[in-house]
Amino acid sequence: MTDRTLDALLADLVIANRILAHEGVLDDFGHVSARDPHDPSRFWLSASRSPELVSRADLLRFDLDGRPEDPGQRRPYLETIVHARLYAARPDVRAIVHHHARAVLPFTVTKRPLRPVFHLAAVLGEAVPVWDSVPEFGDTAMIIADGAVADSHARAMGGGNSLLLRGHGATNAEAGLAAVTFVAVTLRDNAEVQAAAEAMGEVQYLSPGEIALTAKMQMGERPLSRSWEYRRARAGFAGL
Amino acid sequence: MTDRTLDALLADLVIANRILAHEGVLDDFGHVSARDPHDPSRFWLSASRSPELVSRADLLRFDLDGRPEDPGQRRPYLETIVHARLYAARPDVRAIVHHHARAVLPFTVTKRPLRPVFHLAAVLGEAVPVWDSVPEFGDTAMIIADGAVADSHARAMGGGNSLLLRGHGATNAEAGLAAVTFVAVTLRDNAEVQAAAEAMGEVQYLSPGEIALTAKMQMGERPLSRSWEYRRARAGFAGL
Amino acid sequence: MTDRTLDALLADLVIANRILAHEGVLDDFGHVSARDPHDPSRFWLSASRSPELVSRADLLRFDLDGRPEDPGQRRPYLETIVHARLYAARPDVRAIVHHHARAVLPFTVTKRPLRPVFHLAAVLGEAVPVWDSVPEFGDTAMIIADGAVADSHARAMGGGNSLLLRGHGATNAEAGLAAVTFVAVTLRDNAEVQAAAEAMGEVQYLSPGEIALTAKMQMGERPLSRSWEYRRARAGFAGL
Amino acid sequence: MTDRTLDALLADLVIANRILAHEGVLDDFGHVSARDPHDPSRFWLSASRSPELVSRADLLRFDLDGRPEDPGQRRPYLETIVHARLYAARPDVRAIVHHHARAVLPFTVTKRPLRPVFHLAAVLGEAVPVWDSVPEFGDTAMIIADGAVADSHARAMGGGNSLLLRGHGATNAEAGLAAVTFVAVTLRDNAEVQAAAEAMGEVQYLSPGEIALTAKMQMGERPLSRSWEYRRARAGFAGL
Repeated sequence: MTDRTLDALLADLVIANRILAHEGVLDDFGHVSARDPHDPSRFWLSASRSPELVSRADLLRFDLDGRPEDPGQRRPYLETIVHARLYAARPDVRAIVHHHARAVLPFTVTKRPLRPVFHLAAVLGEAVPVWDSVPEFGDTAMIIADGAVADSHARAMGGGNSLLLRGHGATNAEAGLAAVTFVAVTLRDNAEVQAAAEAMGEVQYLSPGEIALTAKMQMGERPLSRSWEYRRARAGFAGL
Repeated sequence: MTDRTLDALLADLVIANRILAHEGVLDDFGHVSARDPHDPSRFWLSASRSPELVSRADLLRFDLDGRPEDPGQRRPYLETIVHARLYAARPDVRAIVHHHARAVLPFTVTKRPLRPVFHLAAVLGEAVPVWDSVPEFGDTAMIIADGAVADSHARAMGGGNSLLLRGHGATNAEAGLAAVTFVAVTLRDNAEVQAAAEAMGEVQYLSPGEIALTAKMQMGERPLSRSWEYRRARAGFAGL
Repeated sequence: MTDRTLDALLADLVIANRILAHEGVLDDFGHVSARDPHDPSRFWLSASRSPELVSRADLLRFDLDGRPEDPGQRRPYLETIVHARLYAARPDVRAIVHHHARAVLPFTVTKRPLRPVFHLAAVLGEAVPVWDSVPEFGDTAMIIADGAVADSHARAMGGGNSLLLRGHGATNAEAGLAAVTFVAVTLRDNAEVQAAAEAMGEVQYLSPGEIALTAKMQMGERPLSRSWEYRRARAGFAGL
Repeated sequence: MTDRTLDALLADLVIANRILAHEGVLDDFGHVSARDPHDPSRFWLSASRSPELVSRADLLRFDLDGRPEDPGQRRPYLETIVHARLYAARPDVRAIVHHHARAVLPFTVTKRPLRPVFHLAAVLGEAVPVWDSVPEFGDTAMIIADGAVADSHARAMGGGNSLLLRGHGATNAEAGLAAVTFVAVTLRDNAEVQAAAEAMGEVQYLSPGEIALTAKMQMGERPLSRSWEYRRARAGFAGL
C-alpha cells in the first residue's frame, strides 16, 4: 500500500538536502533529517553522502539511538547520533539541520554573541548559544560520534531552536523541513549582516518584543511556503 | 481590444521581477510594482509569490487602499499597502521596489548615513533617510501591513526617492520600471563600496553639485535603456 | 578582399568585451577598444551597448577626435573621447579598457594608494595614480564627454598604464587586447587582496625590483596567451 | 597492455585540475600534479595550460629534475621544477597543488600566522609557515623556475604539508589527489573564516590536541571520498 504521507515527507527531505546545498549552507559535509510522520521514535536521514547528491535511495530510517534499519551496503554518517539524541530530547522538533556554514563560524570562536539584526532573523531568538565539548570531554576529533557528546549538545540547545558549535558549525531544529531550511539560511545571512554592521559601529538589534512578534509571523504557513517554493525552484525542482 | 500600452507595461513588470531576483536585490521576499498607465489611481503588483517565479498570471491590479480587483484564488502580499499608500502620496512615482538587499541592512541598524561614493550612485541623492516604525507604533511584527504604518513610511520618504527601513530593508520609488530597477541595484552596490571605503579611512563623497548633475544625466533615456537591455539579457530575456 | 588581420582583431575585440563582462570588470557600463592594425590614427570601439551584448555588428571605427565612420543608426558611447584622446597621446597603446569595477572604487575615494601586493599585480607598476577632474573643471556630470577633460585624463596617466578616477572607476591602457584584459582583471583582484591585507596590519608590498622583473615576465607571450585562452573559454568561446 | 592503475590516476588528475578550477583555487595560473604510481622517480603534470582546460592529452611525465618525457609540441609550465624538487625531497608526498587562491594572499604579506579556526582546517597543522625567496635570492621575477629556488621552497615546507609563499600563493603536498584537493580548498576556506573572526576580536584557535585528533580523522578514507565525490560532481563529472 502506498504511504502518501511518508512519500511526501521523503520527497521533501531530498529537496531540503538539495536546497541547503544549493544555498551554500551544506557542502561536502553537513546533513538534514526529518522525524518519521507516523512513529515519533524514528527519523529519516541520508546515508553518508554529500547533500547535493542525496536521492531517495540514500534515505535510511533510524531509531533514537542512531541505529539504522535495513542499511544494506549504505553506511550512516558518523554524526547520525546528533540527530538521534536531539529528537529524543525534543518531542516538538520534527526536522534538524547540522551544518558548517562558513559565515557562522567566526561567531563560534569569538566572544561575539550572534543576535538578530534584521526582521527575518527574528526566527533565531534573542541570541544563539554556543556549545563547546571541551569542558566535558577535553580534546576530541571534533565530531559528535557518541551518545554522551550528542546528549551534551542537545542539552546546550535547551528549549531553543539554534545552537552554535565552537570551531565547528551550527545546528537548527524546527517543527518541519520548510521551517528548518528557512532558519538555517537566515542564520547564515544574519551572521554576514551582523558582522558587517558591527564593523561600522554601535548596532541596534531587534528588541525582545520585536523578536517575539516577528518570529511568530515569519514562522507562519504563508511566509514559509513562499520561501520553500522559491528555494526549491532555485535548486532545480520548479514544477515538480 | 488589445491594450498595447498595458501589455508592454505588464511584460516589463514581469521582467523587472526577474531582473531584481537575478541581481540578488529581491529573494524569497520583496516585491516590485508599477502604476497603471491609464488610471493613476490603480497599480499592478504580483500576488504573493517570490519575484523570481512571478509571471503574467500572477499580476493583480490594486486601488490605492491596497484592495485587489478580481483576485480569484490569488492572495496578495501582506505588504501590498506599502505600494498603495506611496502611490497615493506621490503622484510623480510610477514604479516601486521594496526589498531586503543584505548589503544595505548594516546602514539601517547603525548611525552611518548611506551616501553616494561613486558616480552611478548619484541617483540616490545626498543621503538616504532611515525610517523606524518604533517611535509611532512601538514593537511590531516588522512588516508594513496596515495603512497607518504605510502612511508613516510614505511620509518618511518625503520628496526623495529612496528610504531605508531600520532592521528591515529599503524602498525605492521612481518614474518608471527601468529607473527603479537601476536605482535599487545601485543602492546595493553603493552600500558595498561605501562600507569598504569607510573601513579604509576618510572618504570623499560626491559633492551636492556632482550629485545633481550626475543624477540628471544617469536618469536619462540612454543610460537607463542600456542598463535595462543588459539586465534583462542577464535575467534570460535576451531577444524577447 | 578579405582583411584577415583586421578580422582577427575585431573578433578578439568582441571576445574582450565578453570576457571583461563575464569576469565582472565591465557591467551595464564601461567599454574596451583596440587601435586599428593598419592605420594608427583610427581605433575600434562598440556603439553604445553593454559589453556582454556586443557583437561584430556593433563595432565602429573612430578617428582620434572620437568621430565615428559610417555609424548609421548606431550611437557612440558618450565617453568615446576617453579612448580617442588616449590613443592620440600614447602611440605605444593599442588597447584600452575603461571600467567601474566595484572593488577598485574604495581606492579612488580614500587616501590609500593602490599598490601591488602579489606577483601577478606587478603589471600595475609601483602605484596607480588617481585623477580627479574637479581641480580643473569643478563639479561635472562625472563622465568624460569632451576633449578637454579627456586630455586631462590622458595626461594624468603619464607614461604609466593604469589610472584610477576619483569616485568613478579606472582606465587601463596596454599594447594589446590580451594584455589589457589581463591587467584590468588583475587590478580588480589586487584591490580586493590589498584591502583585506591592510585590514590585518602592516603589509609587505612588492619591491621596485620585483615589480620590474615580474611585470616583464608576466607581460610575455606565454603568460598572456595562457590567461587569454582560459578567460575566453570561461566566457563561452572555447573551441572557437 | 592496459595499465589500469595509471589510467585511473591520470583520469583523477584531470578531474583534480577541473575541481580546483571550479572551486576557484586555481585560475589562469597554478597547477596540480601526481607522482607516478609505478615509478616514484617520475610524476605527472599538465603541459602549460590553465587547469580548467586540462585534458588527458595535456599530461606529461617528468623526472625529478623537471625534464619532460616525449613533450612533442607541448611546453611545460615554467614552474614545473616546484613539483619536481618537492617530490625529490619528500618520498611521502604523492600529489601537489601550487596555487594563488586570493583569500590566502593576505596571510603571505602580513605578520598574521594562518592557523586553523574550525575542525576541517585541522588538516593544515598548527600553523602554516611562510617562505620568501628574498633572503637567499634577492629580487626575482617571483616564479620558481630554477632548481636552487625550488629546493629552498621544498626545505621551507620541512616535514609539513602546506606552505605559504610571500606575495605569491601557497603549495599543498599530500599523500594523494583527494587529500591535496581537500586541503587546498580548506586552506582557502580557513583563510576567509580566520580573517573574519580576527576582525571581530580575540579568537579561540583549535588546540594542538584537537588538531592532531581531528586531522587524523578528516584524512581518513571516508571523509576524503565523500568530499571528492561531491567536488567532482560539482565540476561536472557526476556519474563518470
